[in-house]
Amino acid sequence: MLKGNAVVGQSGGPTAAINATLSGVIRGAMAAKEKGIIDNLYGMINGIEGFLEERFVNLFDAFSESEKLKTLEATPAAALGSCRKRLKSYSDDEQLYIKIVEKLKKYNIRYFFYIGGNDSMDTTDKLSSYCESIGYDIKVIGVPKTIDNDLLVTDHTPGFGSAAKYVATTVKELMRDISVYTVKAVTIVEIMGRDAGWLTASSVLPLISGGIAPDLIYLPEVAFDKDEFISSVKAAMEKHSGLLVCVSEGIRYADGEYVGADSSKVDAFGHKMLSGASNVLKDLVKEKLGCKVRAIELNLPQRCAAHCLSKTDIDESVEIGKAAVSAAVDGKSGVMMIFVRETSDGYKIRTDAVPVSEIANGVKKVPREFINKEGNFITEEGIEYLKPLIMGEVSLDYDNGLPRHIVLY
Amino acid sequence: MLKGNAVVGQSGGPTAAINATLSGVIRGAMAAKEKGIIDNLYGMINGIEGFLEERFVNLFDAFSESEKLKTLEATPAAALGSCRKRLKSYSDDEQLYIKIVEKLKKYNIRYFFYIGGNDSMDTTDKLSSYCESIGYDIKVIGVPKTIDNDLLVTDHTPGFGSAAKYVATTVKELMRDISVYTVKAVTIVEIMGRDAGWLTASSVLPLISGGIAPDLIYLPEVAFDKDEFISSVKAAMEKHSGLLVCVSEGIRYADGEYVGADSSKVDAFGHKMLSGASNVLKDLVKEKLGCKVRAIELNLPQRCAAHCLSKTDIDESVEIGKAAVSAAVDGKSGVMMIFVRETSDGYKIRTDAVPVSEIANGVKKVPREFINKEGNFITEEGIEYLKPLIMGEVSLDYDNGLPRHIVLY
Repeated sequence: MLKGNAVVGQSGGPTAAINATLSGVIRGAMAAKEKGIIDNLYGMINGIEGFLEERFVNLFDAFSESEKLKTLEATPAAALGSCRKRLKSYSDDEQLYIKIVEKLKKYNIRYFFYIGGNDSMDTTDKLSSYCESIGYDIKVIGVPKTIDNDLLVTDHTPGFGSAAKYVATTVKELMRDISVYTVKAVTIVEIMGRDAGWLTASSVLPLISGGIAPDLIYLPEVAFDKDEFISSVKAAMEKHSGLLVCVSEGIRYADGEYVGADSSKVDAFGHKMLSGASNVLKDLVKEKLGCKVRAIELNLPQRCAAHCLSKTDIDESVEIGKAAVSAAVDGKSGVMMIFVRETSDGYKIRTDAVPVSEIANGVKKVPREFINKEGNFITEEGIEYLKPLIMGEVSLDYDNGLPRHIVLY
Repeated sequence: MLKGNAVVGQSGGPTAAINATLSGVIRGAMAAKEKGIIDNLYGMINGIEGFLEERFVNLFDAFSESEKLKTLEATPAAALGSCRKRLKSYSDDEQLYIKIVEKLKKYNIRYFFYIGGNDSMDTTDKLSSYCESIGYDIKVIGVPKTIDNDLLVTDHTPGFGSAAKYVATTVKELMRDISVYTVKAVTIVEIMGRDAGWLTASSVLPLISGGIAPDLIYLPEVAFDKDEFISSVKAAMEKHSGLLVCVSEGIRYADGEYVGADSSKVDAFGHKMLSGASNVLKDLVKEKLGCKVRAIELNLPQRCAAHCLSKTDIDESVEIGKAAVSAAVDGKSGVMMIFVRETSDGYKIRTDAVPVSEIANGVKKVPREFINKEGNFITEEGIEYLKPLIMGEVSLDYDNGLPRHIVLY
């Protein structure tokens, strides 16, 4: 059994569940400490950037009162800070790897956990191979996170369920809001997801919670057609007055151009500016239909609204962090942790570890069978996939009326 | 004791607490029914517009199972629908008032409750006076609602506390989100409030819940100065990298022009377009400081985020609805219900009724002593006022992972 210290870092864009995974790693490492395997767990501040500068926090000390882990699990965004650094390959910059290994040796680090998106998995892969090539024994494990749910192989990603719950909750509330007037009006809600429409698809979920859903839902997976859009809006308007349309930020036309990349607008200095998908559609509705129209961009709260967590997501995010430690202790390295859905009876998830190379740089799109024939709504099959991921609520602690967060540095 | 039927309506923009007030009126009317005072309570669909068309729902029937009232209290936006109709004075359109009284007589309505903003209070006033002038005995009571908290006389308005809690929660989460990177960046959050900065002021509340707050807060009450803004941003940037600035949509320059009314941008058809305050400041920061900058408009969720209710707000909103029925039964008419803060020990609120004429059409601004000398932050005194209004959480019922709502029509 490999003995020594461990380090954990977070990288890429924040999610509401990335700290739940960190908590899982801490819980797992604490259990490994009991068994005499891991002595200390260091948290690197600002990911690999901070690692290179030896900016660490001792996580066993920080969480010696274990009830603080509960608070960590409900704290949004990377508690250890993040970075956007993508490591060069070691043939291009071996000095960098020599420096990393120097630090690993200095702190006797034998377990390296990296929670992040594609870039982090790339780091996991490169670091693991390099250490193996020079004979430095270390287990390097990647743990995914992204609200976009667009990683290959894993059934879904930690962080997606909470973002989906926030989006579906907000859309359900907006539908109450826009239904109060008798005037014809269209509200266009823009949801995150540049390459895949998973989060936008989750706006359908009010349908199985009260029976109402957006009138139209557009994902990047189906080419967007202006004429179809306008005639669908018109048809929906025949039925009721307050229309809600949900669109991914990444919807694009048949020629591949992003709808939001329309640059016919010019700012105060005469520079062309990107409009964003919802604003382009807002102008289009105003021009073609002349009715009241409003664009709402859900923006950053989608990835940090920890006051609206999916218990399923948080529980699973903790589990996958713990599983990462188990996998490392079992001798795995250069792998990413994944969820496997066992479809035999009801919803059941198990974790597994797969070589990072199977995942890196691919994008998992929403399957065509999750989208209706017309390309403007989600099918029963899509709903079945999404539904379990938003189940359950996390009970939060509050300080002076606001959810309590952990600040580590 | 005046006996007969009662009617209740909702008007103006939605809030997350307007249905809690409706529930209070229903609860109050049910108690009056026990005493043989009120036979039936009708809900008018779409306010006075629906009243004129006799579109009613019988609320005693709809809420015969009283646990449904709990769900109503956590349902956002006007469950009875709303309208934007402002009644002409009866000297201008007596036919309208004759028609209203015809309906009142037809349904033997002796109690009329109208939940809304300034326009609704105006309706309350006019209807009460007209009925008095023709000798039709009816009690007409206005109950306020607005997330803007800008009504005179009342300590605060039902609906404000929940909106403030949502804003403060979201700002607290955004501060975690933007603090993860080491790159200098400015995030500008635009918050509702055209004439008064109450809701924007509430963005300071994370300060007493974890110790961090936005770097700068700008309200419409203080003239906005571009140079002061840029130098304040620069100064804050010396201290840390991720800056958060909160601004009211209604901030304006010393000459009274709205910052957001900048119309130097031109849309695809060559029309001038309004930018919104946060977008104008975003362009300004980009031009003057050249750093990464992002604008986030919190938009409609501010008035309908019922998954993040203030228990204080909801409890008080129910109470003021019940109090409206008591006031009517006691013989009051042409009044608006208000909150009075009893400052003797801790936070304590009682309700009262004041003549609508004392309130109508005025705007309650944030007092200058709630804003710091520089005009870019909130004082201790302001925090003391705001703090109790966001206290407590409402436990919600969920259907398939999303908060349960009531749909009445």
